[in-house]
Amino acid sequence: VNQLEKIVAPVKSELKTLEKRINSILRENVFNEKFTGTFLNKGKKLRPIFLFLLARALGYRENDIVDYGIIVELLHNASLVHDDIIDHSLKRRGESTFNALYGNNIAVLLGDLLFLFSNKLAVEKRKFEILDILVEKNENLLIGEIEEGLNAGNVSLTEDEYMKIIKNKTASLFELVGEIACLLTNKKENDCEAIKGMSSLIGLSFQIIDDILDYTSEVKKVGKPVMNDLREKTLTLPIIYAMKKSYDLKEKVEKFFSDVSNDTLLYEIRDGVVELGGLKYAKEKALEMMKQTRGRIDKIPPSVYKDSLLALVDFIVKRSF
Amino acid sequence: VNQLEKIVAPVKSELKTLEKRINSILRENVFNEKFTGTFLNKGKKLRPIFLFLLARALGYRENDIVDYGIIVELLHNASLVHDDIIDHSLKRRGESTFNALYGNNIAVLLGDLLFLFSNKLAVEKRKFEILDILVEKNENLLIGEIEEGLNAGNVSLTEDEYMKIIKNKTASLFELVGEIACLLTNKKENDCEAIKGMSSLIGLSFQIIDDILDYTSEVKKVGKPVMNDLREKTLTLPIIYAMKKSYDLKEKVEKFFSDVSNDTLLYEIRDGVVELGGLKYAKEKALEMMKQTRGRIDKIPPSVYKDSLLALVDFIVKRSF
Repeated sequence: VNQLEKIVAPVKSELKTLEKRINSILRENVFNEKFTGTFLNKGKKLRPIFLFLLARALGYRENDIVDYGIIVELLHNASLVHDDIIDHSLKRRGESTFNALYGNNIAVLLGDLLFLFSNKLAVEKRKFEILDILVEKNENLLIGEIEEGLNAGNVSLTEDEYMKIIKNKTASLFELVGEIACLLTNKKENDCEAIKGMSSLIGLSFQIIDDILDYTSEVKKVGKPVMNDLREKTLTLPIIYAMKKSYDLKEKVEKFFSDVSNDTLLYEIRDGVVELGGLKYAKEKALEMMKQTRGRIDKIPPSVYKDSLLALVDFIVKRSF
Repeated sequence: VNQLEKIVAPVKSELKTLEKRINSILRENVFNEKFTGTFLNKGKKLRPIFLFLLARALGYRENDIVDYGIIVELLHNASLVHDDIIDHSLKRRGESTFNALYGNNIAVLLGDLLFLFSNKLAVEKRKFEILDILVEKNENLLIGEIEEGLNAGNVSLTEDEYMKIIKNKTASLFELVGEIACLLTNKKENDCEAIKGMSSLIGLSFQIIDDILDYTSEVKKVGKPVMNDLREKTLTLPIIYAMKKSYDLKEKVEKFFSDVSNDTLLYEIRDGVVELGGLKYAKEKALEMMKQTRGRIDKIPPSVYKDSLLALVDFIVKRSF
């Protein structure tokens, strides 16, 4: 966390305002008692931080950048609420999930409401270009999640298919940040393409690292159960790579999917993924993306924001939570 | 259906276009195979029909009224998809629900996607006033559904609380129709208030009739299971009224809620509701609202659309499906 605090320093006041205002939105709502004490507003806020740093680095000086940060963070949180229903997750950021607290039924609707809060604020900005891009990226986000759901248990999922899924599922909100920063600073199309590409890469590497952490981390650190992806029959890069190298492992995974309560087999599979170099391969992919990302950020004029952007990219790949 | 066909006659071409275009939206989507053959686009389309008739009666002549009809109908369908997850419903309009077809997980996300399709088209209309009202009514819709969910099993729910819930849950989309018709025809504030009030009453009486039909109808006619509300512990007007008259009935309901598979008790409760005049009371409420509604429609200048509007209100209260 300490490292992240240093990165955030140049946009600390924006982040404080964002947190205060998200709390207000949750508190002033008719269902405020359902939102208080939940995981909402307790995340790392990587997407708004990325937005603040990027927009400032590109020269945007208005205070209303916070509004856009809230739009993105609320959208992200809404999708997490529905995600937790789908994954039957009971913990998130060390807190109980909405489905754990209120049951699936109410959780579906509270998630819908969070989507609406994001959209409401976006409509209030009175910028159709922003609404267009929000709709597009929200659609991609949903498509990615549906594709992931439809591919649950599909041991033949290829690396390309996985990349397509996470580009939609995760990179879309980072791309949204890139597009918002572009729109607000009226960048030329060429510059925009570079910024959007860079944002997308950050999102992809973020997700790959997340998928690695599911294999390597401890519950205490990530605030949610580990080895959860396989229990939900979600195939990610480390195991996709490892299964391609070992038919024996693939068979084990198929066997595990017929009884996901078999923890002995689960940890055997994990050891197999490590031995076959699945985690190493995924990490190298993420590092390669980080390198490309750094190259594109380097072209932005020097500023404290740019320095923090570079440090943020480092953090995303090196984080342990 | 025949009666409805006659009502629809003046806006038949709008309705045909709407159905064709909704089919295109569902077919051209990346998950088209998940949408085909489902209950989507198979409903009575009361909300778009109401919009077409009202807007035309108020003098709106543009073809793009169909766009607004699609926005409302898709929003309605999105909320039905999430509704069916919440109510564990397996049938809707005679077809399998999304949760029955694909499981709750995928159904949550396909519902999200339908919400998005509605919002996408709304953004394309490039009218902020429409987006404002859409956000407001969508929020009310969700609030009503959440309140209903939180009051499941609450045998102390009052008639006032029930009315507040259905005003949000159901009347909000009829109010949306009224507001859209107002905005498009640039009505003065006074006229608008009357139109909005009338739209709200139509929504309320529609829901009261729906709640009566849950007690009186047959599966074949409504295309979904009957006596479903009580099984989901949802208290509606007929039983709220009847329980106020009989403590004995209230105790029976409480007992039933502790084991909702007890069909003998369920049909005993239904008989009690009938004997205590619960259905009669609810029907009178709906008829009183219809009378008020007719009074307000009467002030609209004469036209075939106005005649159909009056017939539509009749149909809504007298329908058996």
